[in-house]
Amino acid sequence: MHRGFALAEQRVIDALADAVVADITSGMIVGLGTGRTAKRGIKALADRVREEGLDVQCASSSLGSEQVARELGLSIVDFPTLERVDYFFDGADEVDRELRVLKGSGGAMTRERLLAWASDRVVYMVDEHKLVARLGTKNTLAIAVVGFGLASIRAKLRAIGLSGVCRRTIQGEHFVTDNGNLVLDVGLPEDANLELIAAELNDIPGVVDHGLFLNEADELLIDHDGAIERIIRPD
Amino acid sequence: MHRGFALAEQRVIDALADAVVADITSGMIVGLGTGRTAKRGIKALADRVREEGLDVQCASSSLGSEQVARELGLSIVDFPTLERVDYFFDGADEVDRELRVLKGSGGAMTRERLLAWASDRVVYMVDEHKLVARLGTKNTLAIAVVGFGLASIRAKLRAIGLSGVCRRTIQGEHFVTDNGNLVLDVGLPEDANLELIAAELNDIPGVVDHGLFLNEADELLIDHDGAIERIIRPD
Repeated sequence: MHRGFALAEQRVIDALADAVVADITSGMIVGLGTGRTAKRGIKALADRVREEGLDVQCASSSLGSEQVARELGLSIVDFPTLERVDYFFDGADEVDRELRVLKGSGGAMTRERLLAWASDRVVYMVDEHKLVARLGTKNTLAIAVVGFGLASIRAKLRAIGLSGVCRRTIQGEHFVTDNGNLVLDVGLPEDANLELIAAELNDIPGVVDHGLFLNEADELLIDHDGAIERIIRPD
Repeated sequence: MHRGFALAEQRVIDALADAVVADITSGMIVGLGTGRTAKRGIKALADRVREEGLDVQCASSSLGSEQVARELGLSIVDFPTLERVDYFFDGADEVDRELRVLKGSGGAMTRERLLAWASDRVVYMVDEHKLVARLGTKNTLAIAVVGFGLASIRAKLRAIGLSGVCRRTIQGEHFVTDNGNLVLDVGLPEDANLELIAAELNDIPGVVDHGLFLNEADELLIDHDGAIERIIRPD
């Protein structure tokens, strides 16, 4: 009894993380996002598994999240073998009230999008400072490209108004994604038509992915100092 | 005189290869395709450099072609540093009279398409047995995918009517492209709308590239037993 009380005191309340795992039920395959916010959700999920005996399997979008999940005792399945997952939660760099999401600062967006597309329900969780009126306000747009086409792809991007820098590591080397691609970080013009830019990017050969997740989210969870706002995509 | 005569006798006439390099002029950057037919063009280009003193630089779509070009004395520039090239020639698996081209049996299509998109003029050269009424008659459609999404991408392809096998090496390992992707070889249904399929493939996350080159060709050269037919895309 005393021990249980001590554990309860140690448990830090994380309303956003608790909200993002609240709808998960036994039998689900749950996709895990990548980054610090997603990690909070992974911890909350592990709490429910431990405390309620919830029985779920997890597919991770990165080695980092997989490691955290394993350390917390979550059961992991290999995503490349899965045709679909039931529920996927992830953090984001920016969101707007039209459920549009900017991703890519971590460079894991290709795997994150694959999980999102494979998932029946997709939820992004953010603290309120990431809620913006216009995507690209605080962040550049990440574009993953096949390195072989670096200069020619940059020329094509310039032609549609996008220019920026090739992401480098602190050591000055080209940053390389999990899938072996380079990342260009480009500024989004203030009057950018995001849907048009996303379509143009999809049509440029050698652009493997980008940070505009315009239709992936079924739901946003926004943390206003512990009060969780929920925005659900209309049917 | 005698020596020159002997050399002339050794020169095998290759009308298709001669035709594909006929319009190349000094000062051009020339993109080199990949495969056996492209190699014939590379040899014909090296002949013109040697015999006429043509001054060109070459950007190669594969290590194999680069090696052949270097051995023949051609000057090589690194494509990733180039924004554009002047002229690109390549072979193909199949072509039709609407200048639609099927590529991908060699698995180098991503780099080949990047060169095609960077090039002012794009020419495909084939022997006549590769001219078909309908693409996909003699070959499957190659689709390069991010391995992380293998099962979920296959499920999405099935949903648009495309199913097939994951390409393997003779040793039974997954075949991996120059850019680290896997290749699915899928059958093209007889009534397939190629433009629609290409658009759908471009929209599936994790599909890096595919073998449908529907708008890349400016010109086709078709070898009918030494008589070269030329099909030029109308403006």
